[in-house]
Amino acid sequence: MSDLPKSIHIHEQGPREGFQYERGPIPTARKIELVDALSETGITHIQVCSFVPAKNVPGMADADEVAKGFKRKPGVRYEALAMNAKGLARALASGRFEVTGTISLTASEPFLLRNQKRTLQQNYDAQHQMIEMYRQHAVPVERGSLMAAFGCNYGGDVSVRQVLDMTARMFDLAAEHGLSIKVLSYADTMAWATPLAVKRLVGAVRERYPEQRISLHLHDTRGMAVAAAYAALEMGVDIFDACAGGLGGCPFAAHKGAAGNICTEDLVFMCEEMGIDSGIDLERLIEAARLAEDIVGHPLPGSVMKGGSLRSLRARSPLAA
Amino acid sequence: MSDLPKSIHIHEQGPREGFQYERGPIPTARKIELVDALSETGITHIQVCSFVPAKNVPGMADADEVAKGFKRKPGVRYEALAMNAKGLARALASGRFEVTGTISLTASEPFLLRNQKRTLQQNYDAQHQMIEMYRQHAVPVERGSLMAAFGCNYGGDVSVRQVLDMTARMFDLAAEHGLSIKVLSYADTMAWATPLAVKRLVGAVRERYPEQRISLHLHDTRGMAVAAAYAALEMGVDIFDACAGGLGGCPFAAHKGAAGNICTEDLVFMCEEMGIDSGIDLERLIEAARLAEDIVGHPLPGSVMKGGSLRSLRARSPLAA
Repeated sequence: MSDLPKSIHIHEQGPREGFQYERGPIPTARKIELVDALSETGITHIQVCSFVPAKNVPGMADADEVAKGFKRKPGVRYEALAMNAKGLARALASGRFEVTGTISLTASEPFLLRNQKRTLQQNYDAQHQMIEMYRQHAVPVERGSLMAAFGCNYGGDVSVRQVLDMTARMFDLAAEHGLSIKVLSYADTMAWATPLAVKRLVGAVRERYPEQRISLHLHDTRGMAVAAAYAALEMGVDIFDACAGGLGGCPFAAHKGAAGNICTEDLVFMCEEMGIDSGIDLERLIEAARLAEDIVGHPLPGSVMKGGSLRSLRARSPLAA
Repeated sequence: MSDLPKSIHIHEQGPREGFQYERGPIPTARKIELVDALSETGITHIQVCSFVPAKNVPGMADADEVAKGFKRKPGVRYEALAMNAKGLARALASGRFEVTGTISLTASEPFLLRNQKRTLQQNYDAQHQMIEMYRQHAVPVERGSLMAAFGCNYGGDVSVRQVLDMTARMFDLAAEHGLSIKVLSYADTMAWATPLAVKRLVGAVRERYPEQRISLHLHDTRGMAVAAAYAALEMGVDIFDACAGGLGGCPFAAHKGAAGNICTEDLVFMCEEMGIDSGIDLERLIEAARLAEDIVGHPLPGSVMKGGSLRSLRARSPLAA
């Protein structure tokens, strides 16, 4: 009936996705407070910030200070996002991150044209420079990532065939540079995925590349993220990007109230209740999500942070203890 | 891989669940406005109101006026909820509803004791009187329903074995009164279900009663409703209760911000995108959900009403037309 994994790895991106998206200025100290709270939940992989030009992303203007300020907890892998040489240099100079490289393609040309003013071919060519830059800084590259893997607001549906074609091109790039991809990451950048679409994509990729681990980056703009994650779990997918409280929003949604990334504690709740270990303490994670809500100053879309977990309810039931 | 149905039947309960739950007084005319808007979406089954004592449920004090006021659209089945003889008499007297009876049991005794001050046995015995009452009024009874089918805030987890036992008791009751149950409805009253739990419950019931249609009543308090519905679809379940905009709330959740029933338009969106027909016009349904939000005067938890459907996005993509 299903092939649920025994455990999953969560890559928490709330601090980066969230503070990148929020409008209001948020004090650096409070950003650090959230990273530190997340470090105490059992999460082992946190994307802390993004080294991007402040004029493009004002919420990341204090990335260097955030990088300096958070407490590195042993056993947790801290990452920062860098999209170009300058960003990579800042990430490396901080000495606070495990910097890794990604071969990053996008399935939709209209999205690329609009978002990065590049054609598919130009974006492909740009990857050579990125990989060369990683090589110069001895940054390992073991990950291939595809954006808009399920559909695009500007280009419509993305077929499984397109996804397989773009995935093959990632492997071409890797081979050309003597790299070995170990994880394939598919991002539903504009929230077009359904659970069935996830099964089809993962099934096709699995068939072609049975040895690769697959990771998903899901958005909940249309309420499908948890269902899509469940479908992925049934296909054996065991790596997920997620954001505490559902931080993040979606710049491509029809209106501002739209939800952001898949909510970490909702995903962890589902996994825990289904016997899938995430290594995360759900109660502490809920506390961190509530802290995130306090920091951004408006309700976050997460459900379990409002509905509560089942632990305390079980504890008080007549059958307990 | 899956056994997705070709089509589903949605029983819209937004007007009843929503206006029963909302605190503020809502003008009768606006309640009627929502029912009429829902009637124009292609939904074929609407629960309009509940005939209950106004002192228990102030939001339903105007149920007789709502019943009189809405436009009956041909092809739509309108229902009202009645829990006792007086309520049933009001529903029948209005002449506005297709009144049907349900054999209604609850899986959790602590919940029954707290909510209805009855033991499991007392509740079972009370069904005899309800069935007799239906008989006196020539109301057909073809549905068995089980509340708290996945777990209970006061009694903890509910096992598949308990569910099968209670289901067998429904059939005992039906047999004693010469009734034939055609639909088994399972309600996740306090939002304990996960997709895996749905698969286990539905699988076990299916194995024991292969001829029965199964219906689910899901709550989204912990963000699991759409994922649970997907799991149910994979098991061939094709009847769902749902509420436009996610109207309804959850009186058993940890705090007031908790979501209500599974959101109709999110469920319809998922089905439509996966090729499952609901007969419902998603764009009109989104309009109705926005109307519901306007009527209750606070944000509703539905996602697609905020994120938007994909129809207009597809229409403007370069590959369209």
